[in-house]
Amino acid sequence: MKSNNKLKNMIFFDNASATKVDDRVYSEMQPFFTDYYGNPSSFHDYGQFVNDRMEQSRTKVASLIGAGEEEIYFTSCGTESNNFALWGIARAYKDKGNHIITSAIEHYSILNPLKEMEREGFKVTIVPVDKYGVVNPEDIKKAITDKTMLVSIMHANNEIGTIQNLKDIANVVKEAGVVFHSDGVATAGIIPVSVEDTGVDSYSFSSQQMYGPKGAAALYIKKGVKIRPLLLGGIQEKGRRAGTENVPAIIGFGKAAEIAKFELEKNLKHITGLRDSLTSGIQKSIDKIKLNGHPAKRLPGNVHIAYEFIEGESIILMLNIQGIAAASGSSCASHALKSSHVLLAIKLPPALANSSVLFSLGKYNTQDEVDKVLETLPPIIKRLREMSPLYK
Amino acid sequence: MKSNNKLKNMIFFDNASATKVDDRVYSEMQPFFTDYYGNPSSFHDYGQFVNDRMEQSRTKVASLIGAGEEEIYFTSCGTESNNFALWGIARAYKDKGNHIITSAIEHYSILNPLKEMEREGFKVTIVPVDKYGVVNPEDIKKAITDKTMLVSIMHANNEIGTIQNLKDIANVVKEAGVVFHSDGVATAGIIPVSVEDTGVDSYSFSSQQMYGPKGAAALYIKKGVKIRPLLLGGIQEKGRRAGTENVPAIIGFGKAAEIAKFELEKNLKHITGLRDSLTSGIQKSIDKIKLNGHPAKRLPGNVHIAYEFIEGESIILMLNIQGIAAASGSSCASHALKSSHVLLAIKLPPALANSSVLFSLGKYNTQDEVDKVLETLPPIIKRLREMSPLYK
Repeated sequence: MKSNNKLKNMIFFDNASATKVDDRVYSEMQPFFTDYYGNPSSFHDYGQFVNDRMEQSRTKVASLIGAGEEEIYFTSCGTESNNFALWGIARAYKDKGNHIITSAIEHYSILNPLKEMEREGFKVTIVPVDKYGVVNPEDIKKAITDKTMLVSIMHANNEIGTIQNLKDIANVVKEAGVVFHSDGVATAGIIPVSVEDTGVDSYSFSSQQMYGPKGAAALYIKKGVKIRPLLLGGIQEKGRRAGTENVPAIIGFGKAAEIAKFELEKNLKHITGLRDSLTSGIQKSIDKIKLNGHPAKRLPGNVHIAYEFIEGESIILMLNIQGIAAASGSSCASHALKSSHVLLAIKLPPALANSSVLFSLGKYNTQDEVDKVLETLPPIIKRLREMSPLYK
Repeated sequence: MKSNNKLKNMIFFDNASATKVDDRVYSEMQPFFTDYYGNPSSFHDYGQFVNDRMEQSRTKVASLIGAGEEEIYFTSCGTESNNFALWGIARAYKDKGNHIITSAIEHYSILNPLKEMEREGFKVTIVPVDKYGVVNPEDIKKAITDKTMLVSIMHANNEIGTIQNLKDIANVVKEAGVVFHSDGVATAGIIPVSVEDTGVDSYSFSSQQMYGPKGAAALYIKKGVKIRPLLLGGIQEKGRRAGTENVPAIIGFGKAAEIAKFELEKNLKHITGLRDSLTSGIQKSIDKIKLNGHPAKRLPGNVHIAYEFIEGESIILMLNIQGIAAASGSSCASHALKSSHVLLAIKLPPALANSSVLFSLGKYNTQDEVDKVLETLPPIIKRLREMSPLYK
């Protein structure tokens, strides 16, 4: 297979876009392709065996965020979970009002469905963030009207890594009797998450961010919170998400959630150590840079830095040639070639926004890899700056 | 793992609900979990390698139904494809009108979203079928008004196996300048399908019906036909279906489509032979039965029969004890325990509807398995009838 060896030797510092499936996760999924391939809705033993295993997976996934298994609905990806939450909650509560509040730095899977919903008569208020990407609960409070029925604020930002204080936001939202959704795709399995402590009514998270397979994600819906289905058809997922369940991926998701919970502290320590080593190494060896996002309240693996005078894309390409995979922003928008809405929202000047690179570290990364990047990056930046007309 | 050996020795005659993943398909998918796990939207080599392979898969999937690869959009399941087609086309053409036509025997992933759409102001006409489950194009013609913007008729019915003459329906629909969608989940990969010959504008089909993995399906949208996305977010699938692609499943779908195309005639002959052997064997050995669906224009693997005086569920349970997996209807509704809407639409009396069992045969089934069922079934029917108060 082409590129085989080259890829295997690459340093993968793009864990925000995808993660390697843990070998233990993969072993667990394997028999569900060619041996236990029954449809979990079937009455016969083929179906029931698969269904039992899928429900065990639901328990593990629920446990990761401190939810009950009856509060977990499987979907195909984080984007579907977010779309489901927005449309489903808005439709269920439309008698209460048509007003939704969100922030300027949400993922596209929140902002774009909201644009479509505006076309269909919903009203959306977008609250700003500060220079670190932090939402002020007071801004939410001010935006709430008697027509507001949903507030959606992400747990941590996938680009700049800033973690919100959900609890403070939840307090304001709950006080107003409004439903509170949070996009937790960047956080669940990575930092400790408790739906009870954070006070969310609804929470999206995804297998592929925690060394599980693509094709499985979940939406937590707190008991008693109403939601209408986005995908309608059969009676899967208690009638809230139709379509044959992606059994192998769900089995893998369960195992990934179990491992993530068990090894969370260990991974957190390891990844944070690498992050701090990489960040301070870059700060020591390269001048005229800016770390984006909150300096302390940030995702453990996030190193998002702007390198003045040069294009982030050029840095990515040069790194790629040297065998290092990094990103210039959200992979969901990587082909759009426009400035990140997140960086514009934290009021980074466009020139700096376009000069940003995201290294996102994961549990399989090592200090040797960080050292290799610290060797490789400074000459790349130097060379690109020498070529830049903006650099004196 | 529990039930391991018992399941491996079962006769799986429920291929309409799920199929075993072909070993060749599985081998193709395997490296995309732990080796090539990049996000296809990423710029670096990890992403580009995966993206290239995903596009090769799209070409194979397109080729199966004679479409161009730019007309294929990957989704997570057949249900999502159908929901996407209905909502997406209806929203794109709402300036033209708000009227949609479908048939009484569609899958729930067509009928249930249409109910939700009625709540939001769309009007739906449901045309009847004849006693074999055949839609009369004249009924469609009569139902079309100047507000009609979409007609959705399934290619073959997943329960009774009846295959529609799509071409005749398409002619009527196209003459009126209306968009024509067809749910081809039960047909693509099983019987020859050409989107050009059938005249459809939109066509749903699924990997898991053709010995590919769960978690991947497609929607064909003819070039020039408008559709709005159902899942919004990133710019995946040319902006028409957001969410990180389920890469391994899509790779598997591509291989499954390639094999299905290449081996279609062989499988068709093999499965039809088994079906005819099973059908005539049952007809010879058991009296007071009724074959449902069209006697000739039916899916190659479909043996849907009503056994007077007894409950289909009881037959399924007895067969299961004897190691034979069969179904009493659509697995998407199997826990609903109500009469099939399909059987009511062909005007089967409720008692007969509830006495029906579906054997759905696939390429891995053998004549030995058919013989085993022909040995096992008559004594089960005899015993259940003896227990039935309705049987003289």
